[in-house]
Amino acid sequence: MSSVKDILIEMKNLSELMVDLAYSSVLFQNKEAAEEVLNLEDRVNSLNYEIKKQSLLASRSVEDAEKLTVLLEVAEAAETIGNAAKDLADLSIKGFEPHPVFKMVMEDSETNIYRMKIESGSDLINKSLGNILLSNRTGMRVISIRRDLTWIYGPNKDTIILEGDVLIVKGTEAGYDILNKLAKNEITLDEI
Amino acid sequence: MSSVKDILIEMKNLSELMVDLAYSSVLFQNKEAAEEVLNLEDRVNSLNYEIKKQSLLASRSVEDAEKLTVLLEVAEAAETIGNAAKDLADLSIKGFEPHPVFKMVMEDSETNIYRMKIESGSDLINKSLGNILLSNRTGMRVISIRRDLTWIYGPNKDTIILEGDVLIVKGTEAGYDILNKLAKNEITLDEI
Repeated sequence: MSSVKDILIEMKNLSELMVDLAYSSVLFQNKEAAEEVLNLEDRVNSLNYEIKKQSLLASRSVEDAEKLTVLLEVAEAAETIGNAAKDLADLSIKGFEPHPVFKMVMEDSETNIYRMKIESGSDLINKSLGNILLSNRTGMRVISIRRDLTWIYGPNKDTIILEGDVLIVKGTEAGYDILNKLAKNEITLDEI
Repeated sequence: MSSVKDILIEMKNLSELMVDLAYSSVLFQNKEAAEEVLNLEDRVNSLNYEIKKQSLLASRSVEDAEKLTVLLEVAEAAETIGNAAKDLADLSIKGFEPHPVFKMVMEDSETNIYRMKIESGSDLINKSLGNILLSNRTGMRVISIRRDLTWIYGPNKDTIILEGDVLIVKGTEAGYDILNKLAKNEITLDEI
């Protein structure tokens, strides 16, 4: 049952992250964000499959079935939301001639979503988010971390950054420039 | 064109807020959150209608039409996301016997979404969010404000609270209790 709970929470977090990334992918013609949505799409589908399987296995009575139905409906909604996000990301991947309104949206918004990989030797490696105070130093907020095939949604101050992590961050272009240099081991924390 | 831009940004914000509220409505059996989703559903539908109308009026050539198509697809995705959120909220309004997993999800989560109306005489009236430092005092974050028939999404430190505003806030139950007393004019800011 604990695994069903974890799946449910992950589907919620996943679908919310996908929506966030998908809007950025189209409104800011952000292909990195679009690619992450496609990565997450596979995950949301396989979680939905898993929750269906577990629910069917756990269903022993009419009461069980009624209670489990609501779980399946939540999972279904998460997949629907994820699919809508994927449709937006597909537009961005395919490429389109942007309407001038998109330029206006970008000018109105101070922040965008960025992706960066933590390269060997980076000063961020083995430090916790709380320890390096990224949002104080650079104004950037880490919204998720992709680590090999797993995701950390909404990392907190105790989350440790490892070499090879892919950070999905939100903030200004100036903040991104600094953070990207840190990730690429071009500057150290003491230099900012 | 500026109005199309505003509609687009509002649809994005609306659909994200609906998803946030909808998950809370089901996972925490939160009927207040469900009711707000239903309020927002009307708005997202009427904005989608408006953006379609404006796009058709603005389309003068094949190039126009191609560029406008992407706008319509974004609006369509926002409506799809909103509809998925509404399906979840409907479950919560209708009521259901919760699966034990929901209890586990609630125990895992420290925060919930709450709604409160700013009553006459409240110490919060005519003060800005920055001025009263709610998140420092109570740990509560205002995620949106409903003011008569309009919504303020992602209010910032300069947003002034008015009498009659309905605040949608996220945080702990303890934080909510304090904030609710402030809203109901049962305590003043000096007392917390």
